[in-house]
Amino acid sequence: MLSETSADFFGYYPGTVALVTAIYQGQRNVMAAGWHTALSSEPPLYGVAIGRERATYGLIAASGEFGVNFVPAKQARAIQGGGVLSLHDGADKFAALGLTPLPEQPLALREAYLAYHCRLTATLPVGDHDLFVGQVQRTHFDPAQYDERRLFVGQAAIYLGRSEYVTSGAARQSFPPQLYRPEEG
Amino acid sequence: MLSETSADFFGYYPGTVALVTAIYQGQRNVMAAGWHTALSSEPPLYGVAIGRERATYGLIAASGEFGVNFVPAKQARAIQGGGVLSLHDGADKFAALGLTPLPEQPLALREAYLAYHCRLTATLPVGDHDLFVGQVQRTHFDPAQYDERRLFVGQAAIYLGRSEYVTSGAARQSFPPQLYRPEEG
Repeated sequence: MLSETSADFFGYYPGTVALVTAIYQGQRNVMAAGWHTALSSEPPLYGVAIGRERATYGLIAASGEFGVNFVPAKQARAIQGGGVLSLHDGADKFAALGLTPLPEQPLALREAYLAYHCRLTATLPVGDHDLFVGQVQRTHFDPAQYDERRLFVGQAAIYLGRSEYVTSGAARQSFPPQLYRPEEG
Repeated sequence: MLSETSADFFGYYPGTVALVTAIYQGQRNVMAAGWHTALSSEPPLYGVAIGRERATYGLIAASGEFGVNFVPAKQARAIQGGGVLSLHDGADKFAALGLTPLPEQPLALREAYLAYHCRLTATLPVGDHDLFVGQVQRTHFDPAQYDERRLFVGQAAIYLGRSEYVTSGAARQSFPPQLYRPEEG
């Protein structure tokens, strides 16, 4: 049974929130972005929707690069702070949130289970945000949080809205490849 | 500790998979789409990345409308089938997967905890997919799966990749609004 409601019930959740990183001329920042998605396999493209007023917006536009980091549930506080604090207020958000860029890859966070380093290939205006489209140059992951088939086994931080988070569970449902496959012959 | 890997480790998961619906001239279809995101609040825009070879692609392009449905973990089998079966093979996927469109809103599924009815406003080519951008006309939700603050309390189907799913847990982490808020004065 579904009920109808107004447009204020909008902004898709539950879902993961990405920590988007950017650096330009020594200025660095990290922000929480709930609106993000893969877009293409070949070439590998990833998109993040960023408000034009955000400090990170200018850093990405100027540098032509960004990082997309996914952190586990134990880092939910850092996600929360990444959405509330602003570089516009002078905060070094990495220090404030306890996030550590990798020395050789400053757009990737040591705390992430998965990180993409993207080169900006398009900036697509979509309503009150711009969708930054980036081609994935490098992928990092934490091998302790993936199994041998590269399936995630950690506890993801799943955002519900209104500063509340849950985690992904451990119990898996699996389906055989032949499920629903049309019969041959 | 993060390790580097090749570009084949791509396509963001864990995350939810949407069931995208479309109808044109009596032909209806539903497909699973792992690549989707909100894009704008004002106006409310939602985007789904669809391969151009998919039967649903043609239905959306022709009708100028699509539905985005999120179903709970107990419907993981329907999500799985929604990604494997194809209308191109003649399947009526709604019947095959046990999915029921609402009589008055045929793009919304009775099984969904949240559904958006979108009017197509832009088709943005992004690599090997097109991003269909839709303005949300109506939102449906299942009140049994949301609390009084409109936070999701159900069990979401979280996709890991390779036909495996987990659910979202019940234990919440909450943060007070003043957390990380810069001090005044």
